[in-house]
Amino acid sequence: MEYIKVFAPATVANVACGFDIFGFAVDHPGDVVEIRRKPEPGITIEAIYGDEGRLPTDPNRNAVTVVMLHLLAHLNITDFGASVVLHKNMALGSGMGSSAASSVAGVVALNEMLGSPLTRKELLPFAMQGELMAAGAAHADNVGPSLLGGFLVIRSYNPLDVFNISVPRELYCTLVHPDVEVNTKDARLILRNEVSLKNAITQMGNVAGLISGLMTGDYNLISRSMVDVIIEPVRAILIPEFNEVKQAALDNGALGCSISGAGPSMFTLARSAADAERIGKAMKHTFASAGISSTSYVSGINMEGPRILDKY
Amino acid sequence: MEYIKVFAPATVANVACGFDIFGFAVDHPGDVVEIRRKPEPGITIEAIYGDEGRLPTDPNRNAVTVVMLHLLAHLNITDFGASVVLHKNMALGSGMGSSAASSVAGVVALNEMLGSPLTRKELLPFAMQGELMAAGAAHADNVGPSLLGGFLVIRSYNPLDVFNISVPRELYCTLVHPDVEVNTKDARLILRNEVSLKNAITQMGNVAGLISGLMTGDYNLISRSMVDVIIEPVRAILIPEFNEVKQAALDNGALGCSISGAGPSMFTLARSAADAERIGKAMKHTFASAGISSTSYVSGINMEGPRILDKY
Repeated sequence: MEYIKVFAPATVANVACGFDIFGFAVDHPGDVVEIRRKPEPGITIEAIYGDEGRLPTDPNRNAVTVVMLHLLAHLNITDFGASVVLHKNMALGSGMGSSAASSVAGVVALNEMLGSPLTRKELLPFAMQGELMAAGAAHADNVGPSLLGGFLVIRSYNPLDVFNISVPRELYCTLVHPDVEVNTKDARLILRNEVSLKNAITQMGNVAGLISGLMTGDYNLISRSMVDVIIEPVRAILIPEFNEVKQAALDNGALGCSISGAGPSMFTLARSAADAERIGKAMKHTFASAGISSTSYVSGINMEGPRILDKY
Repeated sequence: MEYIKVFAPATVANVACGFDIFGFAVDHPGDVVEIRRKPEPGITIEAIYGDEGRLPTDPNRNAVTVVMLHLLAHLNITDFGASVVLHKNMALGSGMGSSAASSVAGVVALNEMLGSPLTRKELLPFAMQGELMAAGAAHADNVGPSLLGGFLVIRSYNPLDVFNISVPRELYCTLVHPDVEVNTKDARLILRNEVSLKNAITQMGNVAGLISGLMTGDYNLISRSMVDVIIEPVRAILIPEFNEVKQAALDNGALGCSISGAGPSMFTLARSAADAERIGKAMKHTFASAGISSTSYVSGINMEGPRILDKY
């Protein structure tokens, strides 16, 4: 194979009550990676589009190529040569799993080009190396769903244990990205290291409710369970107009609304595309009323994960 | 109706990772309440069997009659007269929901005698009043599954929000009650009021895993998720030989093993009656090796809840 082009989806991590353990993939936006073989060994970054010049082009410092180098090292391949083009289709630091989508697209593209020596699930630890570089911790709640599709639970990191749960087909997600930036490392630093047993119990009840609600298609239970008493109250202060925008979403039929990943993007779940569209408009309007521009995306839950767009 | 006799099942609360939010009912043991109408208003306790004389016979201080008095008050019934007989078929303070089974049998019997003005689910707040008296807190993780049967999640207390999840039909429970007593109030007092965010996340992952594993019949996932990093490490010190007995259960094929409720009873889940029997013998043997006598019960998950044994 001389050339491959792969899309990997954006993701919503945490999903209200499931801090560090829940994530799901959306149909769009997503990042695209192109890899083209070259005769001399080594990986180079030919171009990055859509990052406003902010991402490093040094292959040892860019998450996309770091994950590729990890995979090549694991496979003991030393003579592979390729140039990489990265198309960023979402803002950096948006809370939509921007770096994860790039890492996943990169590692899936390389694995495919090498004849798929690893399964997608086996690629997860490599994709996580990109998160270690981009966010300072090897989290899986963005790379996991971007790589494997659907709604993913990360039950454990040590050993790594992930599984998909089924969700209603009609479920739609609205993502709204306000034009403000939150640094993932900062968003993590403001969290307390201890939580009250009472809040932990409440959150566990909501985790159980959200899993059961999604698996049985009980929208009312999904809605009642999309409550985060631990992380959202702390991180919401980083997002201007958070409460107003959330209320606008709920007033317009959202099953629930919370922070996507570390923010500042906010997400909702709804039971139809029409609901999700209306909710997105209301949220954008509320941000706009406070002078904040925003971008919204309406999408189903992406069950497929990365998609090969072209190869030859 | 002149007379009614009702059985209500023992229950396993917490179920490893689900402190205060999970509970399930077993087929046996369970308590039995008889109510016989009498002409003069007021409720009296005629006899209590199996409590070794330890339960109060004052109807205002016994959980069984307290729940009945609450129900009568709610229904504005002032002229009802009856005498009550309570058969305790499990030890007090066993961790098997002893007081809950009595309260549930009592409130279900009375409701039935009155022509079922309330549904079983509507009886839950009344049954919880018995727990308030017996254990010092109005918990629902024993009365809930005893009243409604099956595997129950208490998602929230305020407002009260409970739901059943489906479990594999082949699932069997082994309960082993060592002949030592743990006071539920003490078992609660030794718990810390704060937990680390790290442990809360681990526990949430296991809650998600146990729910998904039970609903899909994934025994491996059930097994991996039956891990409690918050409560068990603290309460296990109250149970002599805890680690050895747990290991014996796991060595004999238990999917998992933890404390039933506040202890000292221990429970396991297994994928057949034969496994559950073998596990029970190994656990009893391990207690016996340390000079501790114990009683074991093997049972399926009780999907039915309370059962009317007789009425006329």
